[in-house]
Amino acid sequence: MAGLATPPGALGRLGDLAVWVSAVQDAVPPRGFDAVRLVIFAGDHGVTSHGVSAFPAEITGAMVRTFLAGRAGVSALARAHDVAVRVLDLGCNDDFADLDAATRTALQAHKVRPGSEPLHLRDALTPEQARAAYDAGVAVALEEIAAGADLLISGDMGIGNTTPAAAMVAYALGLPGEAVVGRGTGIDDEALARKAAAVDAAVARVREAGLDGLGALGSLSSADLVATTGYLVTAARSGVPVLLDGLMSVACALWAEELEPGAAQWFAAGHRSTEPAQSLALEKLGLDPVLDLGLRLGEGSGAVAAVPVLRSAVALLRDVALLSELG
Amino acid sequence: MAGLATPPGALGRLGDLAVWVSAVQDAVPPRGFDAVRLVIFAGDHGVTSHGVSAFPAEITGAMVRTFLAGRAGVSALARAHDVAVRVLDLGCNDDFADLDAATRTALQAHKVRPGSEPLHLRDALTPEQARAAYDAGVAVALEEIAAGADLLISGDMGIGNTTPAAAMVAYALGLPGEAVVGRGTGIDDEALARKAAAVDAAVARVREAGLDGLGALGSLSSADLVATTGYLVTAARSGVPVLLDGLMSVACALWAEELEPGAAQWFAAGHRSTEPAQSLALEKLGLDPVLDLGLRLGEGSGAVAAVPVLRSAVALLRDVALLSELG
Repeated sequence: MAGLATPPGALGRLGDLAVWVSAVQDAVPPRGFDAVRLVIFAGDHGVTSHGVSAFPAEITGAMVRTFLAGRAGVSALARAHDVAVRVLDLGCNDDFADLDAATRTALQAHKVRPGSEPLHLRDALTPEQARAAYDAGVAVALEEIAAGADLLISGDMGIGNTTPAAAMVAYALGLPGEAVVGRGTGIDDEALARKAAAVDAAVARVREAGLDGLGALGSLSSADLVATTGYLVTAARSGVPVLLDGLMSVACALWAEELEPGAAQWFAAGHRSTEPAQSLALEKLGLDPVLDLGLRLGEGSGAVAAVPVLRSAVALLRDVALLSELG
Repeated sequence: MAGLATPPGALGRLGDLAVWVSAVQDAVPPRGFDAVRLVIFAGDHGVTSHGVSAFPAEITGAMVRTFLAGRAGVSALARAHDVAVRVLDLGCNDDFADLDAATRTALQAHKVRPGSEPLHLRDALTPEQARAAYDAGVAVALEEIAAGADLLISGDMGIGNTTPAAAMVAYALGLPGEAVVGRGTGIDDEALARKAAAVDAAVARVREAGLDGLGALGSLSSADLVATTGYLVTAARSGVPVLLDGLMSVACALWAEELEPGAAQWFAAGHRSTEPAQSLALEKLGLDPVLDLGLRLGEGSGAVAAVPVLRSAVALLRDVALLSELG
């Protein structure tokens, strides 16, 4: 950017982002992002029976219906910033029997199972279920890329999802539950302590069983989170950049980098979540978020809100005069 | 926002911004921003002869031509985010004699004088010039509002402009030069010390002369900055919200609040500048910036980059389902 008609370093983080976009697109100036696609992976979590969330599990299905109706927070943001949204049921308890056949078929095209086993007691997924979820994420990424996506985002919906995501981070970083758990959508001190204990129990169980790789991931998490990990690995392998969202997205990015070293080069961080595990995982990945707005809406909303900042970075590198052009 | 289908407090800063937009528009849900207009006030500064800037004063005119050509950093951002840009010469040394008559007439419609007197030696503007600059800013704001602006932004262009802006903040907050000056577009330690001394000299002179209000402002600053202050006061008086930019914009907002107490209720802060005086002035105004990207491009660029974040806030309050609508 030394030739741009701007003072040296004056673009700050926008300059760093512009360089990243140029690198992942292998294009100077970069091309911009005309087909940004968010996939929301939905699923329920057996650990919710342990009292780790402020909301009942039934909300998962209600929110999936809200996404389908385009009336959720992330729907509003996506419309404002020209981002396409797709929601998939990977592991919801709800069977969505009330939906019309076509909608239900599309929603459940990659469904692995209803819910997950309680991760503080036993493997959340069997190795076979973990493989199926991972392969689903791979397939979804390939579908999105075939549809022309030039930037992918992952969102997650599922009451209780911050507990398996925190367990994924605790295991990967070797940290105790109390260092990684946060208040999610608003739990009290007692529920926070239960959440930390659930994380510790899950991590200890996986270590004792000697699981690793995809087996460990499935045992600690859920179909939606394993699928998200497969989706992120596939985006990276395909050379399609990803804008990460909050805890769920970043926990999966951490595992994507574990399973496919180098994958994180294709990732930028959209926003800083209020969940401590997200910041810990971002630090490990060497990523610094674009936005820090105290958002804890989930659903991919932080990344969608950050899309215009990426577009700002692209615009600066693409449209600014070169010093050599000035009089 | 208690009725929205989102967890309590989950919107974070976007929730605060949405409430501010609703308040300044007196509309729930808010209407959005369809006519965002940036005015860049340009002018030169006599203090540049004192060696307080990394660039020569001739760059001011070159950059004005770059704005007119739509090739500056802020031009690229404004196109990306649907913001109209107008550039005005309030006090450039350049006479722009090479421009076609219509462009030149529009550019100089509110010109007060070429440059300003060196503020470390004597009054930068006479009281008459300060009044003319202020009235120009009032007129510009009224023109923009008459043209339908629903959100106003101020930008500033002028080599050396961070010195008068720092003097404005030092005077208003009772701080020494060394507490407020920053490196602008990239000065070294020696220039930084000269800049602090220039600020101290200007503030001491104004205090000794017993100036206050518009007289003090004109003595400390320049035609572009006094005009910006009049523009901001007029936006507030007219009930049109303002998204503030970096140091120049925020220094003028601080003086707008001084001259018209309550004006700051109409202001939101677009981005955090790397100049310490900007953060000091924002703190005094009780404003917390939307973006923190290390930008120091000036020109209104930080505020323009923050426009989509305001639009995100509006979208959330306008388009999200109410809990009462969910099944």
